[in-house]
Formats: sequence, C-alpha cells, structure tokens
Amino acid sequence: MRPSGRAPDEMRAIEIQTGFTKHAEGSCLISFGDTKVLVTASVEERVPPFLRGKGEGWVTAEYSMLPRATHTRGSREAAKGKQTGRTQEIQRLIGRSLRAVTDMKKLGERQITLDCDVIQADGGTRTAAISGAWVALRLAVNTLMAKGLITSDPLTAKVAAVSCGICEGTPVLDLDYVEDSAADADANFVLIEGGLIAEAQATAEGAPYDEENLLRLLRLARIGCDRIFAAQDAAVK
Amino acid sequence: MRPSGRAPDEMRAIEIQTGFTKHAEGSCLISFGDTKVLVTASVEERVPPFLRGKGEGWVTAEYSMLPRATHTRGSREAAKGKQTGRTQEIQRLIGRSLRAVTDMKKLGERQITLDCDVIQADGGTRTAAISGAWVALRLAVNTLMAKGLITSDPLTAKVAAVSCGICEGTPVLDLDYVEDSAADADANFVLIEGGLIAEAQATAEGAPYDEENLLRLLRLARIGCDRIFAAQDAAVK
Amino acid sequence: MRPSGRAPDEMRAIEIQTGFTKHAEGSCLISFGDTKVLVTASVEERVPPFLRGKGEGWVTAEYSMLPRATHTRGSREAAKGKQTGRTQEIQRLIGRSLRAVTDMKKLGERQITLDCDVIQADGGTRTAAISGAWVALRLAVNTLMAKGLITSDPLTAKVAAVSCGICEGTPVLDLDYVEDSAADADANFVLIEGGLIAEAQATAEGAPYDEENLLRLLRLARIGCDRIFAAQDAAVK
Amino acid sequence: MRPSGRAPDEMRAIEIQTGFTKHAEGSCLISFGDTKVLVTASVEERVPPFLRGKGEGWVTAEYSMLPRATHTRGSREAAKGKQTGRTQEIQRLIGRSLRAVTDMKKLGERQITLDCDVIQADGGTRTAAISGAWVALRLAVNTLMAKGLITSDPLTAKVAAVSCGICEGTPVLDLDYVEDSAADADANFVLIEGGLIAEAQATAEGAPYDEENLLRLLRLARIGCDRIFAAQDAAVK
Amino acid sequence: MRPSGRAPDEMRAIEIQTGFTKHAEGSCLISFGDTKVLVTASVEERVPPFLRGKGEGWVTAEYSMLPRATHTRGSREAAKGKQTGRTQEIQRLIGRSLRAVTDMKKLGERQITLDCDVIQADGGTRTAAISGAWVALRLAVNTLMAKGLITSDPLTAKVAAVSCGICEGTPVLDLDYVEDSAADADANFVLIEGGLIAEAQATAEGAPYDEENLLRLLRLARIGCDRIFAAQDAAVK
Amino acid sequence: MRPSGRAPDEMRAIEIQTGFTKHAEGSCLISFGDTKVLVTASVEERVPPFLRGKGEGWVTAEYSMLPRATHTRGSREAAKGKQTGRTQEIQRLIGRSLRAVTDMKKLGERQITLDCDVIQADGGTRTAAISGAWVALRLAVNTLMAKGLITSDPLTAKVAAVSCGICEGTPVLDLDYVEDSAADADANFVLIEGGLIAEAQATAEGAPYDEENLLRLLRLARIGCDRIFAAQDAAVK
Repeated sequence: MRPSGRAPDEMRAIEIQTGFTKHAEGSCLISFGDTKVLVTASVEERVPPFLRGKGEGWVTAEYSMLPRATHTRGSREAAKGKQTGRTQEIQRLIGRSLRAVTDMKKLGERQITLDCDVIQADGGTRTAAISGAWVALRLAVNTLMAKGLITSDPLTAKVAAVSCGICEGTPVLDLDYVEDSAADADANFVLIEGGLIAEAQATAEGAPYDEENLLRLLRLARIGCDRIFAAQDAAVK
Repeated sequence: MRPSGRAPDEMRAIEIQTGFTKHAEGSCLISFGDTKVLVTASVEERVPPFLRGKGEGWVTAEYSMLPRATHTRGSREAAKGKQTGRTQEIQRLIGRSLRAVTDMKKLGERQITLDCDVIQADGGTRTAAISGAWVALRLAVNTLMAKGLITSDPLTAKVAAVSCGICEGTPVLDLDYVEDSAADADANFVLIEGGLIAEAQATAEGAPYDEENLLRLLRLARIGCDRIFAAQDAAVK
Repeated sequence: MRPSGRAPDEMRAIEIQTGFTKHAEGSCLISFGDTKVLVTASVEERVPPFLRGKGEGWVTAEYSMLPRATHTRGSREAAKGKQTGRTQEIQRLIGRSLRAVTDMKKLGERQITLDCDVIQADGGTRTAAISGAWVALRLAVNTLMAKGLITSDPLTAKVAAVSCGICEGTPVLDLDYVEDSAADADANFVLIEGGLIAEAQATAEGAPYDEENLLRLLRLARIGCDRIFAAQDAAVK
Repeated sequence: MRPSGRAPDEMRAIEIQTGFTKHAEGSCLISFGDTKVLVTASVEERVPPFLRGKGEGWVTAEYSMLPRATHTRGSREAAKGKQTGRTQEIQRLIGRSLRAVTDMKKLGERQITLDCDVIQADGGTRTAAISGAWVALRLAVNTLMAKGLITSDPLTAKVAAVSCGICEGTPVLDLDYVEDSAADADANFVLIEGGLIAEAQATAEGAPYDEENLLRLLRLARIGCDRIFAAQDAAVK
Repeated sequence: MRPSGRAPDEMRAIEIQTGFTKHAEGSCLISFGDTKVLVTASVEERVPPFLRGKGEGWVTAEYSMLPRATHTRGSREAAKGKQTGRTQEIQRLIGRSLRAVTDMKKLGERQITLDCDVIQADGGTRTAAISGAWVALRLAVNTLMAKGLITSDPLTAKVAAVSCGICEGTPVLDLDYVEDSAADADANFVLIEGGLIAEAQATAEGAPYDEENLLRLLRLARIGCDRIFAAQDAAVK
Repeated sequence: MRPSGRAPDEMRAIEIQTGFTKHAEGSCLISFGDTKVLVTASVEERVPPFLRGKGEGWVTAEYSMLPRATHTRGSREAAKGKQTGRTQEIQRLIGRSLRAVTDMKKLGERQITLDCDVIQADGGTRTAAISGAWVALRLAVNTLMAKGLITSDPLTAKVAAVSCGICEGTPVLDLDYVEDSAADADANFVLIEGGLIAEAQATAEGAPYDEENLLRLLRLARIGCDRIFAAQDAAVK
C-alpha cells in the first residue's frame, strides 16, 4: 500500500490552468497533486549567438524553486549568487525535452524561453515542469501562428514526463515527496505521444536495479504520460 | 481621466487569498488589480549572528520578480548570479516595514522570513508585497501562538503600503504600470493602522514637487491603506 | 541638548575643497563635520546602451566607503565580490538626485559618472555625497563648456541633501553618528534650490512618526540645504 | 561501418595506468582510445556538515576539462568564475555512481574526493571518469586498510560506465567524438559487476528512440562494462 | 633629461601626513609627487584561522585604486565583483613587506590590516603604499603599546619601497606615469633600513636587461629608500 | 647537504615530453624532478579588443594546479568561483615571460594561449611552466610556419626560468618543496638565452638578504637555465 493510498500505476490528479499570467505569450499553472509549477513561454525575436543568421530558432528553459516551495525554507539562488547543480541539470533536461518536438526551421529565427517556477513541491517537479512547458509552448506557438509570424506548425508532437520509482520492491508511478525520499530507485521518463522515448533516466538511490525493473518503470511511465497527454489536449483546446 | 478610468483617490481591486501554499507557516497571494505577489512566511528557530543569545527575534524579507512577471522577459537574477540594486532596495524596505510592527522580545529567539515573489507585475509590486507580508506574518504568528511557542502577541499593529504619484499634474492613488511609467513623481508610503507613518519615500521622476503635493500624496495614501487594512482584516479572520 | 552641543536646527561645519584630484574633470572633498567624502566627476564620450543614438546624455553615480572610514573596519566590497544593498541603494539615490537637475539633451551624448568615496564617516555620508556631487558635476560641466563641447548649460539648478531625524522626541538637523544610531526616525531630503523637493525619505527606526513631524523634518532640511547651497556657491566661484 | 572501423559492439582500447601522481592516496590515468582522464582519490578525515557525528563516510567527485582537452580551446571555468551546467551534471553522476558501491558505515567518518580531470577528450569522458574513479577509490581504500584505519572493506562491488548510442540507425558501443556529434541518441550506463544497473540515461539528440533500442543499448553496455571490469581488475592487482 | 626635469637619482617630493582619518589606530596620507595613497592600519583582536591559538599575530594588506585616481576612469572593482590580478599581486606584496619587519610573537594574537587606497596615481603607487603602510603600522603599534596591550616593540626595523626603471637606456629613480609607460625595464625594491633587501622585482617591459643594470637599479633604490626612511622618521616623531 | 642530496648548483632531472595531447597546436609535459606541468599552446585567429586592427598578435597564459597536485588536496578554483591571488600572479608572470621573446608584428593578428596545468607539484611549478611554455609556443609557431600562415619567425630567442633560494644560509638552485618551505629567501629568474634577464624576483621569506646573495642567486639561475635551454633544444628538434 502506497502512503497516499494510490494503486502502483495510479497518477495523482493532474490540473492545468492556462493563461495564469497575462504578459506571457503562453502560460499555465500545472499541478500533479500538491506539486504546482508555474510555466511561462516568452517569445523573443533573437537567437543565441551560435545560431545567428542560420534561419533557425531555439527553445530553452529555466527552472527555479521558490524558497518556501518545500517543507523547510531553502536559500534563494539569486541571493546566494549561483544556481545549484540540481537546478542546472533540471533546466537542461526541460530544454532538451521541448526541443525534441520542435522543428527549429519552422520556428524561424526566434527564441522561446520556458520559465518553470515551482510554487509548491511534493515530488516530481521536473516532470510537471516539462509537461506544463509543452502547454505553454503550444499556446505561445498558437499566438505566433495567429499573428501570421509562423505559417507552418513547428511542434511535431506532444511531449510529457513523469517520474516512477521502486518503493519497497514495487515499481510505482508518479512518486510524491514521501515516496521519493525513501525510493530504492528513481526514474524520469520523457515520452513523445505515440510511444517513442525522448529521455530515460533511472538512478539507483538505494539498491541497484535490474533490466526487468527498468522495463516495468517504463511501462508505468507510458500509463502516466497517456494521462498527461489527455490533460494537455484538454488544456490547449 | 486616469488610463484605467479610476478616480484619483480610487484603489484597484484588492484580493488576498490566504493559505496559497501548504508548507509555509503563513502565506497569501495578494492582488492589487493585475499586480499579484505570492508571500510566504517561514519560521526558523534561529536568528542572525548579531542577535544570538539576546532573547530577541528577527523579521526579514526577500523579494523577487519572476522573469516573465513583466511585459517583456527580464533576466533571472539567479542565472545572472546577482540581485539588482532595485531588488535589494525593495527587500530592505519590506523587512523594515514589518519590523516596525513587531515586538522582537515577544517573538523570542526565532526568525521569520517573508518571501515576496511577484507572479505578475502591473505597478505597485513593493507595496502589495508589504501589505501581503503582514498577512503572512500574522498567520505565521497565529500558528506559533496556537502551538504555545509564543504566549504574548508580538504584532503591535497592522501595517500596509500603497503607491501614489503625480500624473499630469494630479496626485493619484495606486498607480498601475501605465501611470507609473509616465508619472512626474512617484511615492510609496508605509502606514501603521491608526495613522502613524513607518516610511515615506517620494521621488521626483520628472519635475520636482512641492510640500503641498507631498501632503496630498500622503492623504491619498491614508485612503488607500484604510482599504488595505480592511482587506487584511477580512483575510486573517 | 544634542550630544554635539548643537542647536536642533544647526548644521555641522560644511567645507568643500575643490580640485582635490588632478585627473578628474571635476572633483571636491566635502565635509559635514567629521564626515568626509571625496567626489570626482568623470566625463566619458559614450552613453549606456539604452541611450545610444538618442542625442541624450546620462549622469550616474557610484558610492563606496573605505574599509576604515568607520569606527570598526568593515570588509572591502571589492574583496567580498559584491556591493551591499545599502551601497546600491545609496548610489541609485545619488544618481537620481543629480539627474533631477540635468537637462540630458543639453548634455549631449556623453556620460558623467560621480564617484563618491567616503574617506571618513560620522553620519550623513549619502547627503554629503549628493551635495558634493553637485559641485563636482558643476565643475565638470564648466570644463566641457570652456572647451566648447557644450554650448548651453545643462544644469538647471543646484541640488543639495541633508539628513534630519527625531532624537528623543525632538526633530534635529544633520545627525552625526551618535545621534543617527539612536534616532527614532531618520530622514533624508534632496532639495532643489528654490524650495522644490527632488526626494524625501523618512524611515521610522524606532517609533513611527506623524504628519506633523514629517513637516518639521522637512523644514529643518530647508534650513540645512540653504546652508549647503551657499557653500556650493562659494566653492564653485 | 563506423568512422573508426570498429564493429558496433567493439570498445576502444582501454588503458589504466595506476599511481600516476605521487601525492594522492589513489590515482590513475585511464584511457578509452584517445580519451584520457586523470583521476585522483583524496582521503580527508572529515565529512560534510550533514553527516557529522553519524559515524558514516562520504564519497564525492569533481570533474573538469583542461581548456585544450578539446579540438578548439574552451574557456577555463576557474577564470570564468563558474562551472557549467554540464560540469555539475557530470560530477554529480560520478559521485552517485561511486556511492552506489560504497558502504558508508564501513568507510567511517571520512570523505574521499575523486578528482577527474580530462587531459584529452574524444567522447565518453564521463564514463571513463567513472571507470577510472573506481580504480582510484579502490587504491585509496586499500591504503586505508593497509594502515589499519579501516578493517572491513567498504567497497561492495566494482562499478564501470560506458556510453552507447544510435548512429545512422545502428546501436553502437563506446562512441568517439565523431560518432557522438552525429548520434541520434546518446546513452550512458553505469553498471555494477554482476549485471545490476546503477544508472541508465538515454537521450534522443536527433530522433526519439523506442523500447527495443533502449534494450539494445543496454546490452551493448554490458559488453563494454565487462571489458572495463577486466581492465580494472588487472590495474588494481 | 627626464620628462619631469629630475636628475636620474632624484626622488619626487615625499610628504607624509599622519592622522589623516580619526577612526583608524594609525593612518597617513603619503605622497610621492602627484601619487597619493591613503593608508589606514586597523587592529582587530582576532587572527586568521591558520594562526588561532598559536599566540602569534598577523599583518595583512588590501589595496585599491579609486576609479578616477587615473587619467581615464577605471571600473570599480566592487561593482565588477572581482579584484584584478594586478590588485591582488600588489596587496600580497604590501603584506609580505610589512611582515618582513614584524615579530609576530611580540604582536600577540591580533591582526593589523593595512588598507592602501590610491587617491591619485602618477606612477609608483605600490611603493608609496608600502612606505606609508609602515608609518600607519608604526602608529598603530604605538597605540597598542601606549595602552599596554603590547609590552615589547614588535617592529624590528623600518621598511620602505621605491620604483626604478631603465628609460631610454638610463637607469632612473622613482618613475612617474610618463616614464613608467615608456620604460624598458621596471623594478620595485623593498628595502630594510640598514641595507638588506626584503624584495626585489625587476621586469623587462621592452628590452631585457643585464646584471650590471640590475645592480644600478638597486643602487638607485638605496638612494630613494634613504630619503623615505628620513621622511618616515620625521612623520612618526 | 641538501635534503635531496644534490649539490647547491645542481638542477633536478629535466624531462620534456612533446606532443602530450593531440589537439593543441603545441604541447609538452615538462618535469623538473617530481614537479610535472602539462603545457598546451592554442592558436586562435583573434586578438584581445585593445589590439584589434593593429596587425599585431598576443601571447597570454593561464595557470592552474590540479586539486591533488599537492600533498593535501586544495580546493578547486572553478568550484570556489575565483582564482587565488597566487594563481593570477603566476599566470601574469608566464605571459610576460613569453611575450619578452615574441615579435608581435611577425606573429600577426592572432593569439596564442599557453595553458599550464600542474599535474604534480614539488616546488618550482611556475618556472617549469615558463620553461615548458616556450617549448609549446615554439611547436605552435612551427605549425603556423609549416602552414605558411607566418613567414618570418616571431620567436626572437629561447626563454627559461628557474627558482633559487637561500637555505640555511646557502644559495641553492632549483628548490624542491621541502627546501622551498624552509627557505629564508626565494627567487625566480626568467632568463633569455645569451644571458639577459627578462624578470628577477627575490623575496625574503625569513631573514632579508644582501646584494651579494642576490648576485649569487642570479649566478645559480644562469647555470640552471643553461641546462633548461639544452633540454628545450633537444625537445623541439
């Protein structure tokens, strides 16, 4: 029995509230249970130096946790003057995941930045961030297309992410904080609608795991991502 | 006529949603019209070095704007590795304002940090932050008193803040971004319920102003703060 | 009776020694009693990026305290690798104050930087800095006009600043360190010759203050600034 | 045909030269073909703050690339004043991998730091670093045991890592720089001798991949790690 | 003929004004011609970690140039967030030079920091700083002895420094900025009264130099330092 | 008798292994006994801003010590986020030394960066770095000449460096760590083949030294540099 009473293959409630802020070209507040992440997509008519003049766009991401998103207050990265390794690792993962479903030629020479700010954390903040970032990106691209700035849709598919783990020997889906802290293995899968994999990361926190369990975790991730794809569809309609 | 159609002494709608996050000892999302600030109060059983062993507490604040809280995306301070002068000036003001209504002996040797994160900006973010911070602080102190950790209420009064300014020659209350950008003078008042002043700051952005106008701005601030005090009362009940 | 034996509306001795350094286009060492600030004005034939090509100039300021300007040695900001919030707040105030009396069109596309370095501190360093900065700026502008680089005087008026405060219930002018440490309220006024106000900041450090006292502090500031205007006049002649 | 002429399941030559530096408690220069990483293991009789007094040890890692380890010179992180996200991500991975085979109770309250400095890069630097770090750690632990500071071996197994990828549709083992730059998917596996998995990371750089290919990559990794385990055995004998 | 009209072995005018600031335990403003350095000596009853509990003291130095000490304004190190290599090299040299004449046992477990801030630069700022630092240190030690905190004089001798160089083939003493910019070789000597050498540094900026010229530069330095020793004596009497 | 058993004027074994890394235009691993420094020369077809468009090149250097190059592990500068004063002082010295033998006009508008990374430290790392840097620079220039990018050799002479010191009253050549830690005076000489001096630095660590000893140290340096010149010749042939 999981601490939350959920079945092993049961996701937490997914909520996606679009248009959470009025300035961004696309935005949403996404919740996986008590994990809440605000994502904004900002379009800028410029690209990083290595892409200038190539006629291609760029999609990138930044991630941050508000200091009191967690049980005890963490120090503010802006006050410390540097981002932790964890923050940098997560924002690199988010950016890669969204680029996996974006045709940069069709986007044209502009950059979309996905700012993922965790308002409240209860496990799975990076996967909620990726899943919400797709929604914000979709909305921003819709805005660009509505304005005629882009004529052919650069988004090739939906992308979603979910965490899984092995808790007391059992593979389970969408870990909350209590499970995450005690899991033997902790995995994050980024899946493309249709079933292909953009990213798989599975880490033994306690005991190492075998091939069979890696596959079980992947199967749970498919169940979870199907739920998220449905919620994304509902949100952007 | 103001761009928003408001009368010169008319505040924007004030909303205070308490308990916005589940981890903080006190929290609220405060809105002055389209300006939205999330404030959390975090209690820690330790004080800064200069207060250790003195039996007194401390109240401090940190302030940040999410990168896309504004019309165009600003760079993330954590990514740049330093806080701007504006950020530091604002967080010092917030901390001072709350300390003005806190009896540090009664608080006991603990620190309460008020994190003010601007979700959406439309003028007056620092004054909304101060006004919301009082609510979060009140709730956090209530929690401490309910637990019996504090026996005598350390909060001596309510504190609220509002901006005023001189726009096209007319003193007006609670400037939104459009007015703020064009104002000749820009003032922020931090008032204690009952009428005393904790902080007055009035800056000529365009033309300098005279004593008469300083007083008119202060009178507008009294009108605005009375509205905020009422909203604070309603929120913490 | 004030610790220094001064009357409530009595300034400390003001001294302004111009030409303190030979390289700067304008410079002075200004003293308010034992507070001594070296100000240099440096002209550069370039403007910040946001002004390029607009035909307008810019006036900005930097402020620093030498490590042993104070009773006990403070750490050097260059060694710590960052400026404190207090430093940033003060240098923003100085820049704003001088810009309030400068016509940027007449200055032309060049920047004048006012470096204010506190040699010895005894209260009121920021107000001495502003008052001295006007002298250095005046001298630098004179240099530009003498060279024919500017044909119409961009300085529209004199500007001066002074601190006031409420000490043991009495409003007093130009606080020294002893008074400043114990004041209930602490104010800084930046006044334009003729009586208009560029900036008013009044902070309750101990007890909050009322409107009547705010006005009394402003009246003291007028007395102090008139003294400073006279000293500025004498210095630049 | 691979650019190097290797078969899809063929590793590059593995060389491990132990005792490369005289000061470290354990060290080696490990080569996977032209990729060369110097690893030193440094024992310190202290642990990070969160472990003090718990009777447990810690194993951590730092990673860096010499500026000219690569085709074109990269900037030195010490000169820029910050480590890139890539560096931080890699050093977190190395530390986690080594902790997966260390019994911290048996290590006792001491820390071993594995410094992995890439002398020459040709793809697979992080996996060479992990594989070499095990050798340096093994040698350092041997030193501690020889001195009687540790009585029971804290290393529970060998650990090794190798990269795999999908190049022009074919899963291949141990990518060099040319293959790495053009791969559709890029994976790193950290395996424990005996077959369990400590870490699996597979990223789609170009096209996303399917479950079948994930398994093929894992099987290649097993072949590669068996080769590395043999080289580690030979090196520490 | 030197640009300044001085003879090759002629120093600029040396002035040492003691007690330039009221807070420091020792201070002076030292001038070598137009080069002016303010030096303060600050006594703190603590030592760096590596000396704690050893009953020995420490003497250290910090150096900085005010932004407009030079012909054109340099950027402020505190604003840039780091000290240049030149600054660090100079402050290490100053500290070493003063430690060469201090008996750390007699100083007792306290630290004296010599802050050397260049008010105006015209060549030779580091040598003026060292020479003035000895005066400030002497005065601070006198204060400690007068208070009975130190019973036996820890200063073993006077120390002074001067620059020399080879300009258009001729060895000359005490270079000003014009000579310094064009010198073929540039040397700094730190001498102990009596003739011993604490530090010799001679750098070929243009053409390399021979042993004969190294000796000539040293002889000029002796002439200069004798002048400085006399000025130091006069200043501290 | 020296701790190593060497005669006072005896160098440690010098080894120079060229082509240590395959990417750099020039590289070597230089050893002075147990001191080992890897030097790479990187050619870039750009110059620093102050040289742009002048038709001249630039030679610069960076220096770093691997964390465990020393007896006990030092912290990694990239992790701390800043280079020490010692590092900056050394890399400035290396750059100056190499520029002393380079004709920048003949080099043309390109920059060569010499990265000196200390693999193992046993005294004299900066002098080994300079001596090895010449070899790497020579090889890089040879590459440029072989490609026809440079037609006239910009290297005007060989340059080498060696440390000397006064140990227990005796001047000795090429100090190892044990001698260096206990030396009364510590000197580094950078000599040009033929006998001229590019740089002389002699510091009293314990007792100050006299002119006679300065000359003795210089004579030892000549003996050492002649040995190094021969090794450089052998290496680049």
